[in-house]
Amino acid sequence: MSILERIQSPADVKKLAPEELPQLAQEIRERIIQTTAKNGGHVGPNLGVVELTIGLHRVFNTPTDRFCFDVAHQGYVHKLLTGRNDERFDHIRTSDGYSGFLSRVESEHDAFGAGHAGTALSAALGMATARDQRDSDEHVVALCGDAAFTCGITMEALNNVATSTKRLIIILNDNKWSIAKNVGALPRYFNELITNPVYNRLNDDFESLLQKMPGGDSLIKLGSKWKQETKDFFVSSSLFEKFGIRYIGPIDGHDQKQVEHYLDFAKNAEQPVLLHVLTEKGRGYDVAIQNPERFHGASPFDVKTGKGTPSAPGTPPKYQDVMGHTLVKLAKEDANVIGITAAMPAGTGLNILENALPKQFFDVGIAEEHAVLFAAGMATSGFHPVCAIYSTFLQRAYDQIIHDVALQNLPVLFCMDRAGLSPNDGATHHGLFDLSYLRCVPEVVIMAPANEDELADMMATGLAHQGAAFIRYPRGNAIGTPIKETPVPLEIGKAQRLQKGSDIDIWAIGAMVADAQQLAAQLSEHGIQAGVVNTRFVKPLDTELLAESAQNTRLIVTMEDHVITGGLGTAVMEALQEACLHNCPVERIAWPDAFIEHGSSVAQLREENGLSPNAILERVMAKYAKLHAIQEVP
Amino acid sequence: MSILERIQSPADVKKLAPEELPQLAQEIRERIIQTTAKNGGHVGPNLGVVELTIGLHRVFNTPTDRFCFDVAHQGYVHKLLTGRNDERFDHIRTSDGYSGFLSRVESEHDAFGAGHAGTALSAALGMATARDQRDSDEHVVALCGDAAFTCGITMEALNNVATSTKRLIIILNDNKWSIAKNVGALPRYFNELITNPVYNRLNDDFESLLQKMPGGDSLIKLGSKWKQETKDFFVSSSLFEKFGIRYIGPIDGHDQKQVEHYLDFAKNAEQPVLLHVLTEKGRGYDVAIQNPERFHGASPFDVKTGKGTPSAPGTPPKYQDVMGHTLVKLAKEDANVIGITAAMPAGTGLNILENALPKQFFDVGIAEEHAVLFAAGMATSGFHPVCAIYSTFLQRAYDQIIHDVALQNLPVLFCMDRAGLSPNDGATHHGLFDLSYLRCVPEVVIMAPANEDELADMMATGLAHQGAAFIRYPRGNAIGTPIKETPVPLEIGKAQRLQKGSDIDIWAIGAMVADAQQLAAQLSEHGIQAGVVNTRFVKPLDTELLAESAQNTRLIVTMEDHVITGGLGTAVMEALQEACLHNCPVERIAWPDAFIEHGSSVAQLREENGLSPNAILERVMAKYAKLHAIQEVP
Repeated sequence: MSILERIQSPADVKKLAPEELPQLAQEIRERIIQTTAKNGGHVGPNLGVVELTIGLHRVFNTPTDRFCFDVAHQGYVHKLLTGRNDERFDHIRTSDGYSGFLSRVESEHDAFGAGHAGTALSAALGMATARDQRDSDEHVVALCGDAAFTCGITMEALNNVATSTKRLIIILNDNKWSIAKNVGALPRYFNELITNPVYNRLNDDFESLLQKMPGGDSLIKLGSKWKQETKDFFVSSSLFEKFGIRYIGPIDGHDQKQVEHYLDFAKNAEQPVLLHVLTEKGRGYDVAIQNPERFHGASPFDVKTGKGTPSAPGTPPKYQDVMGHTLVKLAKEDANVIGITAAMPAGTGLNILENALPKQFFDVGIAEEHAVLFAAGMATSGFHPVCAIYSTFLQRAYDQIIHDVALQNLPVLFCMDRAGLSPNDGATHHGLFDLSYLRCVPEVVIMAPANEDELADMMATGLAHQGAAFIRYPRGNAIGTPIKETPVPLEIGKAQRLQKGSDIDIWAIGAMVADAQQLAAQLSEHGIQAGVVNTRFVKPLDTELLAESAQNTRLIVTMEDHVITGGLGTAVMEALQEACLHNCPVERIAWPDAFIEHGSSVAQLREENGLSPNAILERVMAKYAKLHAIQEVP
Repeated sequence: MSILERIQSPADVKKLAPEELPQLAQEIRERIIQTTAKNGGHVGPNLGVVELTIGLHRVFNTPTDRFCFDVAHQGYVHKLLTGRNDERFDHIRTSDGYSGFLSRVESEHDAFGAGHAGTALSAALGMATARDQRDSDEHVVALCGDAAFTCGITMEALNNVATSTKRLIIILNDNKWSIAKNVGALPRYFNELITNPVYNRLNDDFESLLQKMPGGDSLIKLGSKWKQETKDFFVSSSLFEKFGIRYIGPIDGHDQKQVEHYLDFAKNAEQPVLLHVLTEKGRGYDVAIQNPERFHGASPFDVKTGKGTPSAPGTPPKYQDVMGHTLVKLAKEDANVIGITAAMPAGTGLNILENALPKQFFDVGIAEEHAVLFAAGMATSGFHPVCAIYSTFLQRAYDQIIHDVALQNLPVLFCMDRAGLSPNDGATHHGLFDLSYLRCVPEVVIMAPANEDELADMMATGLAHQGAAFIRYPRGNAIGTPIKETPVPLEIGKAQRLQKGSDIDIWAIGAMVADAQQLAAQLSEHGIQAGVVNTRFVKPLDTELLAESAQNTRLIVTMEDHVITGGLGTAVMEALQEACLHNCPVERIAWPDAFIEHGSSVAQLREENGLSPNAILERVMAKYAKLHAIQEVP
């Protein structure tokens, strides 16, 4: 039996002798590599925190003590040490397995769920304040990556730490990467902390460091006088001390003994403490170390070579790549077109722009609010920024969309990748709300392409429009439509009639247009003539064509890859009411009003939620039959 | 002719002799005090920046050079110096006058509009980057209050400054206040910068300061050696220098000469510079200095006494005060109930909680994201936080609502004040989108009270509910309904039938319920029998009662103080469709799908937007007549 197999709970981790720990770390790494190779997942971040997580569970006692893992994509080790080293771990990120993130539903050891970055410190501060409020004495530990500090929420929390509590342990897990290489002054400063000898390991070691300086001896004498005069000028020199937080570091995050020593120290500290722990992304797995960005979150891969399964010949391109290549085309023609990403150059396809036209590419770090405001600022100066942000992360910049872009009528194009489902990631990553939260914003244009050529055309449309425009498109591969050499702007607010039908008209958008065509074919086999419209624009909606639909058919079916509340189907109903055409019924095919968990594939999650092609066919047939029956009654 | 009257544009400010400036400052202050006394407005912030704004316009050239004013409530002086010292200024914040904020539509000198805090640095960085990108040479100045730095966006921008541009001028306008007293470590640190002699006025003055220290002479020698060794350890000691920004300060913001001297210095700097300018909120007006919170944004007042017009006897309480008093009642009964504000204790009514139960009150600064996440953290530990945040500012925490509260199913109650119109403030402050952006979030409860007693009951309802609940209610006074001693939880999802009617059923919510009753009375005079329902819950909607409405009347009218897209009227249509009751038409009374500008009053803005009681009556009558005609046709 391996050591890992003997671990049923954190208590078992504490029982191990120190000399058994390297073996445990080794076994954990193997388990993670084997599992992610099969299912995909966050390889690098988890391999980096093995010793740190072992140390946490040896020094602290969850679930009494509380750990907040930022983003929570580095929680695999924690899962393995808290009773989840079982077959559900084998199937992690699929319908038979655990979530790829932490989740309060999954385990009492998961104090806080996550999936988006920068939330750990705030949540941990809430827990620490709650503890103080009721005079209990559990420990609260926030584990934040260096990239979390590029994120405004973390800084908002940092400002509140020292005034909210005297006891909080913050671990700065510094691996120098967000998903891509880190951005901005803070990560640079963290590096300075590591390399500059004046920032010392422990403030108490101050004097011993001074001795290494030229003239150090007299400085020590003067320093101690000066210290009194200047209210700890020396010791409050690090950034964190300006926030009232004691800085301790750097600490080698792969030296098990050192890690435990400082965790123990922090446990007994009587002021908020930050441990600056250096870890290596991908530690123990060479191909991951060499490709930190690709192995941040990887698709299934071959353990030996690290290579993923190559796409079959003829596989259509990914939407993200079509976006990137199209943006390069458009940005070459117009130097005012620039691309902005919030720490996601590869995931959004903006890395293609970065390589082709680096001057027109901007990565602002995990800072969606700033990304959008920065875009607004550039837009006031004649630029036309393209913000490429996943649908779920754009929720972060909602106020900036309303207050700083739409209200000021500035030309910014938003490319919202991962609209619809992100099946392996689950509820934190699905992009199911954007149509609803954007439709209420005045004066914006909202589109979704039925295929990759239309995505290119919509990008041209957005850039030709002098206001805010949004394009949503799904994760993964497009459908194989040939892409024109030069994208052509579409007429804003015009839908595309794909086929006519006298009984039902299907208004579909985005990825669902192909499904609508298939549905129409199936309906036709049942003697029902269904038309298909590629809606293209949710706002403004093509109310003229819609009126024709309502007048000429008996049922309108809407199909969207979005939550049912407030999306395309709702927009259609609103328009019919305005036109006094409410008598035409609308059957809305959309995701239910619920959080959708992770699963193996979009198809499987559609099946589970009554959205498989067959389920949709049955539903539409049933609705049509019902209407027919009602109308047959004299 | 006064000096101010001679100022037609910034060029005229530059022409003035230095000795004329105190007089100009004095005239500006008088103009602002007289105008705000009449119209209300941001008194304190504007009186504080008179010399600073004069200095800005003497040193820089707008509109070529660009100023970004954070929040933009301190832009009155700027307006007066940029051609807006006219009768529209007399009527500022009313329908005949200028906006109380800056606005790109109002003047080419307003480089960026605002109304929400923390946006200036990001936007300015966009402008500076745009300038660098096209090699032009205008100056960009961000004017940020100290409170802006408690706001995550500012910190996201700060992280990006040094890597994005070499030329940006940041003014830290430090008056020690947000609206209330500032919160957290950073404001405390700013104060340390002022009082600690080691942080010097100019880094170049380093040595002269050292001479004042004990043992300074030898330190100077050692220091210069050490400086080389330690990569500018001394000079990079301020927080801003860790962000690659040169810190200069403190500067007396009311010393005109000093202000201009340092602005001039910053203009020629070859790296991003932050000027730490100390200003006094309310400068030159004693009552404002003595009451900085009340005179941050004041209602009309008597210039001599500073007193506002007292309410007539019998005036109903403000909703915000009902919220505060009710929360005290509920929090006294349950120590797990706590209140959280993002720098708005007085505006939200949470100051009442602060005074009564200070241990259960938390002000986190202008940090809505952190406020909600901090609430989520506390909620995991058995607390039931009440986040009191204006509707428009809650847009800032949209992702936290979805990702950190609703998805994790945590009990947090949101009290959204200023839902509906904030007439004098205008488009940046109206709370018109919340129903739409919240309705799509799974598993939340959304309510709006028809009167102050119902607000109290809804608070009890929200606190009895173990999940996310939202209550929206308007700015200003309630309607005079007596408040029960003990609030009683309502049945979630149940509407209240107020009167029956056979022709029309009016489903109204919140402030519009009273209007609905008036409308029903008017309709009755025209022979149309209208029922009235107090909807209470937009989510979950009372679909049972709604089905009865649809079956028993010929038209459903919805009335809401919200944008038309995606709100209550839409929820009603969605529910009717689901129940196959789409044949019943719905006339939606709501704000149009447009940004609503500022105006003198809600009544005036309703008039302008076709929402006066008479306009609504006409619209409903016309719709009813049309339906009647259609149905009469055999």
